[in-house]
Amino acid sequence: MSEYVYNLLKKHHSVRKFKKEPISEAHIKQLVEAGQSASTSSYLQAYSIIGIDDPEIKEDLKEVSGQPYVVENGYLFVFVMDYYRHAIINEDSKQDMRTSFESAEGLLVGTIDATLVAQNIATTAEDMGYGIVYLGSLRNDVERVREVLGLPEHTFPLFGMALGIPGDDENGSPKPRLPFEHVFHANRYDSDKEHQSETLKAYDQTVSNYYRSRTNGERTETWSDQVANFMSAKQRLDMLEQLNKSGFIRK
Amino acid sequence: MSEYVYNLLKKHHSVRKFKKEPISEAHIKQLVEAGQSASTSSYLQAYSIIGIDDPEIKEDLKEVSGQPYVVENGYLFVFVMDYYRHAIINEDSKQDMRTSFESAEGLLVGTIDATLVAQNIATTAEDMGYGIVYLGSLRNDVERVREVLGLPEHTFPLFGMALGIPGDDENGSPKPRLPFEHVFHANRYDSDKEHQSETLKAYDQTVSNYYRSRTNGERTETWSDQVANFMSAKQRLDMLEQLNKSGFIRK
Repeated sequence: MSEYVYNLLKKHHSVRKFKKEPISEAHIKQLVEAGQSASTSSYLQAYSIIGIDDPEIKEDLKEVSGQPYVVENGYLFVFVMDYYRHAIINEDSKQDMRTSFESAEGLLVGTIDATLVAQNIATTAEDMGYGIVYLGSLRNDVERVREVLGLPEHTFPLFGMALGIPGDDENGSPKPRLPFEHVFHANRYDSDKEHQSETLKAYDQTVSNYYRSRTNGERTETWSDQVANFMSAKQRLDMLEQLNKSGFIRK
Repeated sequence: MSEYVYNLLKKHHSVRKFKKEPISEAHIKQLVEAGQSASTSSYLQAYSIIGIDDPEIKEDLKEVSGQPYVVENGYLFVFVMDYYRHAIINEDSKQDMRTSFESAEGLLVGTIDATLVAQNIATTAEDMGYGIVYLGSLRNDVERVREVLGLPEHTFPLFGMALGIPGDDENGSPKPRLPFEHVFHANRYDSDKEHQSETLKAYDQTVSNYYRSRTNGERTETWSDQVANFMSAKQRLDMLEQLNKSGFIRK
C-alpha cells in the first residue's frame, strides 16, 4: 500500500511567489497528458487547456486578476469548459446535441471535466517540484478573458493556474481545513444545526490561531468572519449573464 | 524531478468490477484527508463528502444510477456542493451572504471545490491500489438522491465515486483521449473549424479502432458518433430546475 500520493497531497499549499525559470516544453507536455488522463463524464472531454507564455497575454490577464503572480511565474494555464468541438460535430449531424450542451447539465459536466484535468495537472506539477496556485480571479472579467484568449461560443474560461519553481522567499503552509467530522458524513447528511455550529466554533478558533501565529497577532479573524466578509462582498454576480452570453444555461 | 504521479495518472482507467472486501476505516480517513488538502476557492470549502457503506442506501442509489457497481464495491462516496454551513453562518450574521451562494458564481465555486476534492481522493485511492469509477449517473434523479441522503437546502449531490480492489475479471484499459494538439492551445484558442474537424477525423479513427480491437469488431463507432448519440438523447434536462429547488441559481 503506497502512501506516496497521500503524503504529497497533505503537503499542498498554494504558492504565490515563483522563480522566473520557465517550465520546459517537455514538462508542459507531460502535465497536459497527465491532465488528459483524468476521468471524463461519458467520454465527452468537454474542456480545453490554454497554455500561456506570451508576456503580453499574461499582462492582459493580470489586469483581470489583479495578482502579480499571473505574470511572474514559470507558466500559466487557463482551463476552459469547451463544447466548441461538439458544436462542430453538431453542425454535421442531423441530431440535436445543442439542447444538451447548452443545459445546466452541460454546465456541470464541462465544469467537472475541466476541474478533474486541472487537479491532475496540479498534483503532477507538485510531484515534479513545482508550486501551483489556482486563479478563480480570472472570472472577475470573463468578457475580457474571452477576448484576450480568442474564445469562441460554447467555451467558457473557468479558472487559471500559475505554476513554477517556488521562490526562495515563498513561505506558504497548508491552511487548516474544516474538521473531518464536519465535511464527512457517514451514510446520511448530518444537518443538525447545533452540531454544525459547535464544530464550526472550534474550527473558527483554530483558524484564528493560525492567522495570529503567522502574522504576529496582526490577523485574528475566524473562518466564519472571513467567509461572511468575502461572500457579502457579492462578487461576480454577472456570472449567469456571462454564461448565457457564452452559450450556456440557455433555455 | 519525480515522474511518480505522471506514471500513476497515465495508467488511470475506470474500474467497474470490484472485489467485495470493504475499504478499512483508516483508509477512508486518509482518502478524505487527502481530498480536504486540495485547493479551495477563496477558502470557502463549499463541499461535503458522504461516505456510504450501508447496503440499503447503496441499493437506493443503484436504483437511481442503474449501475450494479453502485452496490458491488468496497466503498461509495457521494460528493456534495455544500453551502449549508455558510447558510448557518449567514443566519447569525448581519451581512447578506445568500445572494453570493445562490448565484451562478456560487455554483461554479461549489462544483469546482467538490471536484478538486474528489480528484485528490481518486488519485490517492489509485496509489493505494484501489480502482475507482465516477458516477455522474446519480444526477439521473437528484430529488431521490437528496431524499435518500437527507440533503438540506443549499447542498447539491454532484456525483458519486465507487471504489475498491479491482475484481480479477476487471479488464479496463485507458481509453484514447483527444489528441494533445486538439485540447491544448498555445496562448490563444485555435477556433479554426477546418483544423478542428481534421484532427477530430483522425481521432475518430483511433477511437473506432480501439473499440474494434477490444470487442472483436462488434463495436466500431467513432468518438463523434458516440458523442452525437449521447448528447442527442437529451438526458437530465431537469438540472436547472433541480438546482433551483436546492437553492442555486436563484435570481
